[in-house]
Amino acid sequence: MPPSSRYLQAGVNLAAGGAVARRAADFAAQTRPALQKQNAKLLADIGGFAAAVQIPKLQNPVLLAATDGVGTKIQLLLQAGKIRGAGIDLVAMCVNDLACHGARPLFFLDYYACGKLNPAAAAEFLDGVADGCRQAECALVGGETAEMPGVYPPDGMDAAGFAVGICEREQLLSPGNVSAGCKIVGVASSGPHSNGFSLIRKILADAKVCVPPQNKTESALVESILAPTRIYVRALAALRGRVPVLSAAHITGGGLTENLPRAIPAGLRAELFPDSWPRPEVFNFLQKAGKVDEDEMRRVFNCGIGFAVIVAEKEAETAVAVLRDNGERAQVIGEIREGDSGAGGDSGDALRADFQ
Amino acid sequence: MPPSSRYLQAGVNLAAGGAVARRAADFAAQTRPALQKQNAKLLADIGGFAAAVQIPKLQNPVLLAATDGVGTKIQLLLQAGKIRGAGIDLVAMCVNDLACHGARPLFFLDYYACGKLNPAAAAEFLDGVADGCRQAECALVGGETAEMPGVYPPDGMDAAGFAVGICEREQLLSPGNVSAGCKIVGVASSGPHSNGFSLIRKILADAKVCVPPQNKTESALVESILAPTRIYVRALAALRGRVPVLSAAHITGGGLTENLPRAIPAGLRAELFPDSWPRPEVFNFLQKAGKVDEDEMRRVFNCGIGFAVIVAEKEAETAVAVLRDNGERAQVIGEIREGDSGAGGDSGDALRADFQ
Repeated sequence: MPPSSRYLQAGVNLAAGGAVARRAADFAAQTRPALQKQNAKLLADIGGFAAAVQIPKLQNPVLLAATDGVGTKIQLLLQAGKIRGAGIDLVAMCVNDLACHGARPLFFLDYYACGKLNPAAAAEFLDGVADGCRQAECALVGGETAEMPGVYPPDGMDAAGFAVGICEREQLLSPGNVSAGCKIVGVASSGPHSNGFSLIRKILADAKVCVPPQNKTESALVESILAPTRIYVRALAALRGRVPVLSAAHITGGGLTENLPRAIPAGLRAELFPDSWPRPEVFNFLQKAGKVDEDEMRRVFNCGIGFAVIVAEKEAETAVAVLRDNGERAQVIGEIREGDSGAGGDSGDALRADFQ
Repeated sequence: MPPSSRYLQAGVNLAAGGAVARRAADFAAQTRPALQKQNAKLLADIGGFAAAVQIPKLQNPVLLAATDGVGTKIQLLLQAGKIRGAGIDLVAMCVNDLACHGARPLFFLDYYACGKLNPAAAAEFLDGVADGCRQAECALVGGETAEMPGVYPPDGMDAAGFAVGICEREQLLSPGNVSAGCKIVGVASSGPHSNGFSLIRKILADAKVCVPPQNKTESALVESILAPTRIYVRALAALRGRVPVLSAAHITGGGLTENLPRAIPAGLRAELFPDSWPRPEVFNFLQKAGKVDEDEMRRVFNCGIGFAVIVAEKEAETAVAVLRDNGERAQVIGEIREGDSGAGGDSGDALRADFQ
């Protein structure tokens, strides 16, 4: 179909959209084997915006669904020419949320909106989404690419992701299984992941750090700030195959301070040993350059721990070993004690993890 | 938690975010009964960004998932102070996509991103999402509200939706069931729905129509252009309870010209009788003011038909009657003939419905 002349005048290039849709189908095909592995099957007669997936028969099937964006990190990624990373981040933010509740992701859909559709940039982004899906062993089954002149500046964009997982109800992780004496095992992050970027952008601007970087020092710093969010799906699955994981937390906005208590029942609290894990240099830079106090550091950034699992005391060393065998940096970072941290409700107002 | 001082300086108001999250939970609760009706159950211990839903046991369960935005209509809705409508549109675009493939939506998640979080505007939007979910009889189970200074202008925003439905594999609609002689029943749209708005905005600007409108004539026109997208879920379910529906099409971007052939197998074509349904005045205005030729009208706009179902010839009159009994305006708008329309593949390049 030739691009509509009136539509083109109005700022929408249908031919470019068609080219992106064809690339999206190619990238999606690369992620397809993940469905078979989970005894699921894509029923192929449906377009890119929607998908039909035949799912495995389970005793007590539970669907888990999560949606997220990558926040203002997307602006820095655009400036740095690293939009592929946004695709990985988007998958990571959604599938880690499913994983911490106990489900492996089954499939993923993306929403990509921009001021002017640049097929090369959209393909880079989709390549990142497909990479994230392969890391998470889930299938990219659809998405929407929207050219929205006026809503976004010509070089602006945003993206959102949506992941669905399925599991037996008995596999769900929940705070109820946790008791005093349990150990908290922290799994290393790859950097700030996709949280705290409004503050990071302000710190970089105040410190006059250019993005894209202008020299080697800036380049290393920007690289460490923009590293794609780590995907914990496979490591967690391996761990659950060896050790009973009682509860887990994906450390996102709010840091350990707010995310860990959500994994713990009322009447118990998380006590963390802040010296038990190395704080990556990038967080020291952000704290110093931004004059951010310690309490706020722990509430805005993951400070080096991207995911935490709670296991019985006797399983802690095995859990650390299994995670390390699966390529993660992990250690015991705290333990569960008697005493209410204010968690258990979901008001979010009183959630706190105690740092020694 | 008091709003973080550094974060507030960086343009992110955590207290406003918390207020929106609490309103979102209220709106979500209103839509909850839909799950029970479908023998599903929300397992309540999960935060707003993710949800766990216990699903009914089926023989051959198939999940359908769709994602969509509302395109540049969102900009006009913002200008007109009608952001509640964007919430309905978002649900409609996703659930109608599921419906035309045969699944009723089970749950919905939204992504809402803006430059500066205005809790009142976000609540209006969420009220619309909840309204759409009630119309579609699905549950709002989660979402993400992101304040993204810099990515969006202070008064700018975008939104995306994700819907998941479940059905028996046998309930899926597919082109394969259609044969020559079948009738196409058109169901009226409520206006342009959420497609063609880049062109609409250009036409309005060229015609010097103000949004928000400055007089009664403009007001009526803007109202008819921005009417929320009609949701066909309930009417289609009622129809399927009475008549074997063979295939269906949600008429979105590409109009009847491109969407109808996707519901028809290779070797057959759709012949439409353009005089068989009344073209709403709003489309006549757009055609005249925009000097849009007839072929392009049919390829960009739904021209009055928002959804189409294909039924056996002998069922056509009953189908029309059932749809009318369920509050829809419906009529036979065409029939299936021998001859290839180029459909059947998904290249999109050669899809055509023939207008008499």
